[in-house]
Amino acid sequence: MSKPYVVGIDIGGTNTVFGIVDARGNVLASNSIKTAKHAKIEDYVEELYQELTRLIDANNATDKILGIGIGAPNANYFSGMIEGSVNLPWPTPIPLADLVSEKFGIPVTITNDANAAAIGEMTYGAARGLKDFIMITLGTGVGSGIVINGQLVYGHDGNAGELGHVVIKRNNGRLCGCGRTGCLEAYCSATGVARTAREFLEARTEPSLLRNLPIEDITSKDVYDAAVAGDKLAKDIFEFTGTLLGEAFADFITFSSPEAIILFGGLAKSGDLLMNPIKNSLDKNILKVFKGKTKILLSELKESDAAVLGASSLGWEAK
Amino acid sequence: MSKPYVVGIDIGGTNTVFGIVDARGNVLASNSIKTAKHAKIEDYVEELYQELTRLIDANNATDKILGIGIGAPNANYFSGMIEGSVNLPWPTPIPLADLVSEKFGIPVTITNDANAAAIGEMTYGAARGLKDFIMITLGTGVGSGIVINGQLVYGHDGNAGELGHVVIKRNNGRLCGCGRTGCLEAYCSATGVARTAREFLEARTEPSLLRNLPIEDITSKDVYDAAVAGDKLAKDIFEFTGTLLGEAFADFITFSSPEAIILFGGLAKSGDLLMNPIKNSLDKNILKVFKGKTKILLSELKESDAAVLGASSLGWEAK
Repeated sequence: MSKPYVVGIDIGGTNTVFGIVDARGNVLASNSIKTAKHAKIEDYVEELYQELTRLIDANNATDKILGIGIGAPNANYFSGMIEGSVNLPWPTPIPLADLVSEKFGIPVTITNDANAAAIGEMTYGAARGLKDFIMITLGTGVGSGIVINGQLVYGHDGNAGELGHVVIKRNNGRLCGCGRTGCLEAYCSATGVARTAREFLEARTEPSLLRNLPIEDITSKDVYDAAVAGDKLAKDIFEFTGTLLGEAFADFITFSSPEAIILFGGLAKSGDLLMNPIKNSLDKNILKVFKGKTKILLSELKESDAAVLGASSLGWEAK
Repeated sequence: MSKPYVVGIDIGGTNTVFGIVDARGNVLASNSIKTAKHAKIEDYVEELYQELTRLIDANNATDKILGIGIGAPNANYFSGMIEGSVNLPWPTPIPLADLVSEKFGIPVTITNDANAAAIGEMTYGAARGLKDFIMITLGTGVGSGIVINGQLVYGHDGNAGELGHVVIKRNNGRLCGCGRTGCLEAYCSATGVARTAREFLEARTEPSLLRNLPIEDITSKDVYDAAVAGDKLAKDIFEFTGTLLGEAFADFITFSSPEAIILFGGLAKSGDLLMNPIKNSLDKNILKVFKGKTKILLSELKESDAAVLGASSLGWEAK
C-alpha cells in the first residue's frame, strides 16, 4: 500500500509551521515551533523532529508519510541546500534536505518559501487554473514564486525568482539586507514600510498619529492602523509603497506577461490602502501591449496554510 | 509523402529576409525585399508572394513547403497578429498570419523577431543544449526571447519577453518609441547609442573624432569606428551603454536565473568595447547567489541566418 500522507514544513524567520496533509489537500493536523530558538541547526532539526513525530504519532500517521516538502528562505530545489539566507539564524550553506531526511528516514524536497506559496496558491488558492502567474510575498522580506506554462521557474541553478532584489531605486537607494542598494525588498517589505515611516517622519513636519510612537519601534502594522484611522502621512506611506510595487510589476510583466500577480503575506492584508496605489501605478507605467491584461489579486489562502500546503505538495515528488 | 521543406521569413524594420530550409537546418536558398517600400500591407504581402514563389519555383520546391514561420516585431504567436509595432510602416493590428497563409495556401505561424532568433540560436547556435537562457537583440530596438525549461516564454497572451521596455532610468529618462520614458531600448539600441553620442558631445567639451560628423547623422557604427580608433569619448559611450545593460541583466537574472544571456544584432558585434563594461557592471550589480553563474555570450549565427532559421523552425509546427 502506498503511503497516504505527506508533511509540509514552512520555515519562516520567526515561526516554523508544519502539517500533515492528505492527497486532497486536507491539513489533518498542524503545529509550530520558534525558528530562531536554537543557535545550531542540528538542535533546531532535533526539536522539529520531536514535535513533528509527536504530531504524526498522535494522528496515527506513523509509517504513512510518503515524503516531506519544505519551504524555506533561499532553499534550493536542485541542491537541497539553504544558500546565503539573510533571514535565518544559522550560517549557510545548510544541507537542509539531507539533515531532515536523515533524521526522519523519509525523503525530503525543499524549495524557497515563496515558491512553496506559489504552488499552494496554484493548487488550492487564487491561482487555480492559471498557467502563468507571479506570486509576490510581502513579509519581512519580498519574495517571489514565478509560474510559467504551469511550471515553477527554478532557473538553471534552482535560484530563480528573487524579485525582491530587482533594483527599484538606482540612485541613492536604501541599503538592502543583501548588501546591495535600492532593492524592492528594502522599500516594499514590512520592514521597508517601517523604514519609509521613519524617513517620512523625519523629512516632514505635519502632525501624524505615528509621532506618538517611539520612532525606532514603528512597524508596518502601526502604519496600517494609523492609515485606517485616517492619518494622512500613514496613507502617503502606502501610496509610496504601492507606487514602487506598481513600477516593479510593470517590469515583471514585460518579462513573462502573467495572467495575474498574486500578493501574499502580512502586508498584502492592507487591502485598498496598498492595492489602489499599486493598480494606479501599474496602469501608469505598463507597456501599452500589456495594458489592463494582468490582474492583481490577493492570495485566497491563509498564510500558514498556503505555505504548508505548497511545501507539502513537494512531498509527493520527494525521493 | 510529407513535405520536406519549410520557409522562414524574418521581417525587420529595413529588410525582409526569407529562405527555404530543410529538416537539417540547411538554408537551400534565400533572398530579401525592402520592408518599408509599400504603404499598404497587402502590397507588401503581394511582393513577398511574388519573390518567394520565384525562389521556391527556382529551387524545385513547389508543393514541397510544409509550413511558413515568420519572425516580426511585436508578432503574437497566439493571435497571429502584429500588435502595436513601432518599427514597421503599417497601421496595427495586422492579421499577418492570415494574410500570408491565404496568399500562399500554406499554414503560417508567427512570433516576434527576438523569439525567432532565440529558437534559431537554441537549434543551431550558441544556445545549443541550453534549457534556460535569454536572447537579447541589440538592433534598431532592443528585443528579447526568453527560454525557460527549454520552452520559449510566450506569457498568457503571447506577448512576453519585451525586455527592451524595462525601465532602466526611472528619473529624467529618455523618451522611448513606446511613449514611455527611461526604457532600456532608449539607451542600449543602435539608435540609443547614437542618442548617447549626441548627449555626450553636447555635454562635454573634449575633442573627439565624432565632432567631425554632423551631429544629427551620427550612427552607432560611427561611434564604434571612433572607439576602435582610440577615441576616448566614443569609448565612454560604450562604457555607458554596457554599464546600463549590465544593470538590467542583473535584474533579469533575479527573475529566471538563466545559464546564459546571449547577445545578438548589430551592436553585439562591438566585441570587447561593449562586452567588458557589461561584464564589469553585471559583476558589480548581481545578487550574491547568482554571482559568476550566468555566462554572457555572443550569438554564433549570422544575423540573417539566425532569424530565418528560427522563424523557419516554426514552419514545422504551422497548421
